[in-house]
Amino acid sequence: MSYDYKKYIASVEDFPKKGILFRDITPLLQEGEVYRQACQELGDFAKKVGAEVILGPESRGFIFGCPVANDLKIGFVPIRKPNKLPRETIEATYELEYGKNILSIHKDSIKKGQKVCIIDDLLATGGTMKAAIDLVEQLGGIVAGIAFLIELKDLKGREVLKNYCVKSLIEY
Amino acid sequence: MSYDYKKYIASVEDFPKKGILFRDITPLLQEGEVYRQACQELGDFAKKVGAEVILGPESRGFIFGCPVANDLKIGFVPIRKPNKLPRETIEATYELEYGKNILSIHKDSIKKGQKVCIIDDLLATGGTMKAAIDLVEQLGGIVAGIAFLIELKDLKGREVLKNYCVKSLIEY
Repeated sequence: MSYDYKKYIASVEDFPKKGILFRDITPLLQEGEVYRQACQELGDFAKKVGAEVILGPESRGFIFGCPVANDLKIGFVPIRKPNKLPRETIEATYELEYGKNILSIHKDSIKKGQKVCIIDDLLATGGTMKAAIDLVEQLGGIVAGIAFLIELKDLKGREVLKNYCVKSLIEY
Repeated sequence: MSYDYKKYIASVEDFPKKGILFRDITPLLQEGEVYRQACQELGDFAKKVGAEVILGPESRGFIFGCPVANDLKIGFVPIRKPNKLPRETIEATYELEYGKNILSIHKDSIKKGQKVCIIDDLLATGGTMKAAIDLVEQLGGIVAGIAFLIELKDLKGREVLKNYCVKSLIEY
C-alpha cells in the first residue's frame, strides 16, 4: 500500500508570520503507517547512496533522521543550535530573511571520509542545509546524499544544493 | 548481544553551568547497533503498556520517541516549545531553578481515552514530564507509561511520577 503523503500535510496560512503558508507535518506523524512508510522511503535513499551515518538538524530533522538511522542500524548525529552540545563543537552561520542563525556539531561526530546522509523535513531556500553541509565538509565527511520529506519548488533550494544528490518525497 | 549503555554516555563536568554533571547521549547515538537496541527496549515497554501513540518532548524526546513510534507502526505526537506548532494548541507551564518553561501540544493530537506512552532521554526532577502528563490529561488521554533512557536517582523525579508506570534503561 502506497500513501499519498500530501493528504496528511496540513497547510496553515500566515504561520509563523503573515504571508507564509506553513506545511504542517504533524497530521502525517499521527498516522503511524504513513509516517513509517515515509521513513522507509527516506531510508531506501540513504541506503542507496551508501550512507554510513545519518545527520539531522534540530529539531524536525530528528523526526525523520532518527528512525532512518535505526532502520539502517547506523549512527545518528544531531546538528543543534549553539550551546546545546556539551563537548567540543564547530559552528556554521547562515543568513535568514532577518538576521542570522547558527548550527553546531560535535567535532568528533564524523570520521574523515565517512559517507553521510543529511535528512530534514523540508527544503525551502536551502540555507539550513548549506550550513549543515559546511559542517560535514569541515570535519572531512562526504555528503553522499540529502533527503527531505517536502520540497518547496518556488524557493529554489535545489539550486543551492546542485552539487549534491538530493531527494524529496513530495513537492509543492 | 546486550550492550552496557553507560559505556556510551559521556559525562561532561560543568555543563550547561558550573556544578552540573551533564550526561551526553551523543556517543550512544553514533553507535548504530547500541542506539537501535535502546530504542527496541523502550519500544518493548511501550508495547507492554498498550501504547496507541508515542509522545516526545522537544527535542531529545524526538530522538528516542520517533524510532519507537516507527517500530510499533503507531503515531508520534511532538510536544514543543511555544509558537512552534501552527494549529490550535494547549500549553502547560513548569518551574525551573530560575524562571519558568512552557510546553505546547496540538489540541487535536490525542483522542479521548487514547493510551499514550511518553518517551524522553532523561529523568531529572520530573518537571518537564509532569507538564507533559498535564497536557495529555487535559486532552482526555491516558498516560499508560513513561520511559527514559537515563534516570538521575538523586533528583527523585520518580516520586513526582509515582502514580504512573515508569521505566528507565540506566540509572546514575
